[in-house]
Amino acid sequence: MGTARRRTIWWDDAGAVLVIDQRRLPHADEAARWTSVDDAVRGIAAMQVRGAPLIGVAAAHGIALAMIADDSDRSLLTAGAALCATRPTAVNLQWAVQRMTDALRPLAPADRASAARRLATELADEDAAMCRAIGAVGLRLFEAMHERTGRPVQVLTHCNAGWLACVEWGTATAPVYLAHERGLPLHVWVSETRPRNQGASLTAWELGDAGVPHTLVVDNAAAHLMATGAVDCVVVGADRVAENGDVANKIGTCLKAYAAAVHGVPFHVAVPWSSVDWSCPDGSAIPIEERSPDEVLQIAGHRLAPETTPARNWGFDVTPARYVTSFLTPDGAVTPPELATWRP
Amino acid sequence: MGTARRRTIWWDDAGAVLVIDQRRLPHADEAARWTSVDDAVRGIAAMQVRGAPLIGVAAAHGIALAMIADDSDRSLLTAGAALCATRPTAVNLQWAVQRMTDALRPLAPADRASAARRLATELADEDAAMCRAIGAVGLRLFEAMHERTGRPVQVLTHCNAGWLACVEWGTATAPVYLAHERGLPLHVWVSETRPRNQGASLTAWELGDAGVPHTLVVDNAAAHLMATGAVDCVVVGADRVAENGDVANKIGTCLKAYAAAVHGVPFHVAVPWSSVDWSCPDGSAIPIEERSPDEVLQIAGHRLAPETTPARNWGFDVTPARYVTSFLTPDGAVTPPELATWRP
Repeated sequence: MGTARRRTIWWDDAGAVLVIDQRRLPHADEAARWTSVDDAVRGIAAMQVRGAPLIGVAAAHGIALAMIADDSDRSLLTAGAALCATRPTAVNLQWAVQRMTDALRPLAPADRASAARRLATELADEDAAMCRAIGAVGLRLFEAMHERTGRPVQVLTHCNAGWLACVEWGTATAPVYLAHERGLPLHVWVSETRPRNQGASLTAWELGDAGVPHTLVVDNAAAHLMATGAVDCVVVGADRVAENGDVANKIGTCLKAYAAAVHGVPFHVAVPWSSVDWSCPDGSAIPIEERSPDEVLQIAGHRLAPETTPARNWGFDVTPARYVTSFLTPDGAVTPPELATWRP
Repeated sequence: MGTARRRTIWWDDAGAVLVIDQRRLPHADEAARWTSVDDAVRGIAAMQVRGAPLIGVAAAHGIALAMIADDSDRSLLTAGAALCATRPTAVNLQWAVQRMTDALRPLAPADRASAARRLATELADEDAAMCRAIGAVGLRLFEAMHERTGRPVQVLTHCNAGWLACVEWGTATAPVYLAHERGLPLHVWVSETRPRNQGASLTAWELGDAGVPHTLVVDNAAAHLMATGAVDCVVVGADRVAENGDVANKIGTCLKAYAAAVHGVPFHVAVPWSSVDWSCPDGSAIPIEERSPDEVLQIAGHRLAPETTPARNWGFDVTPARYVTSFLTPDGAVTPPELATWRP
């Protein structure tokens, strides 16, 4: 199993940040090079990197690039504001910027660049360790399922909550990769995830590269799969979890949660603690990003709809807490009512 | 309002059948010309025409083309078998072939060609009249909604159950066109309908052409729209309705029905009587067509997934009767429990 332990973001010897350019996948596996905070801002906004945990870590690296260029207070605040404005829904972005700012502001300007680089790398290491821990928690659930049924565990996932969405391992995919490594038989239904097709282009690529059995389906297929007994559990990531357990995640997640409830299929949300927004009482307080209608109207330059057709394109939806069986956290499986007791 | 009264299938002066080639829409509005039953078989299988009511009427025209070429019993049976084998899920196909065969078989061979052509045209006229009647039934529901809310009626539909799926008017769209004609304010959310994008390419084209306000969204957006109060009712068509009210329709329909139930949004299924299969006790007896994985893996020649990714592609799902608020039939709105009393 190779790719789950590759990283999505790293420093090169010249002090620039390299990221896997996810807009090129699955057709090309190439890195983009960021030499300034502006590169990071543009790269996050344009979705060279995406996935809630990764955009947090990427923003931390952006702050470090800002400090390397200009270690003033003004530079620190300007960089943080620009990075936070790129994507509104994932809380990890604000969490990472806050953490960097709180650590760097008390330091003498001359110490900030090296501290920022060290701290950004620490955040990346932490994310990888949290994902690995989530994997161990999910693995126990998969083992119990396999013991009960005696057949490969059938997992349905949505969008990409894989290692490409994080630093290593992924959130929803961490248990999948661990199980595959341990020889536990499993199969993943990959939902293509319109309009940006992250399931088709990123999750299918990751799983194929790691040799995990998987099958791509359209988002529309979820109810049919569950109704025919083809899904043992749903595992997805999250862009922001409210204190009451409401989950903002890629648009379409909620439809899968409703279907899982109808069919008695467990619905798990794999999250590092950085994705929980303790200041957010419930899902109604989570801002939902609206993106360009062009993502709906055309694919790879091919227009699907008539020239005059209007479209709307919300990036996320909110799954109410009552549809969540458990959160797979680095510290164990936690039900929505238990979540508040974990507040730091 | 022009297009809702255009026809999708007609005879030309040379005795050939013309159909709007729906694979070319929305980019080109062109007719395909069928001069033999083989053309009809190929055209239905390749989805030049699609939509349960239309493929029934198209099959009837295919039988007529067979009779024009060869009016023997053998020709009649071979043509019927070939047409029925093209698409397994929609019951209208078998219904139309059965109706043609029952009418033509007792006739002297020499009388069959002209009778077949007359009967095929009658089936088209009947379908148009049934759709018009469905429209009047749905219009009353829309009027009541508008009276209650005082704002434009917000309709969500899936796939294309428009006039392109029928002969004229459409099933799910018939109330929309009638309401628009009467000046009742309304707006349609058009679900793009992966993998073949019939919502984006056909329904959006129809509604735009008729001047009906509408907005295209991805299939994944349904729960978000309902959760934010943007949908007053769902209206879809059906490929086959079982006697107990279970509904086979385009894959993804069931997810919308589940979401509608969660949010208390009425879920209506607009059907001509030819879509009800009285011989089918419930949805488990409806064959679900599985189509080529290529429809999932690529769009307009552009591959979305890695070259080695496997995919599955079921064309339909079954919405259980308990999620159906009412069937909009040519004879009124009928609840699933009432359906059996309409058995002819």
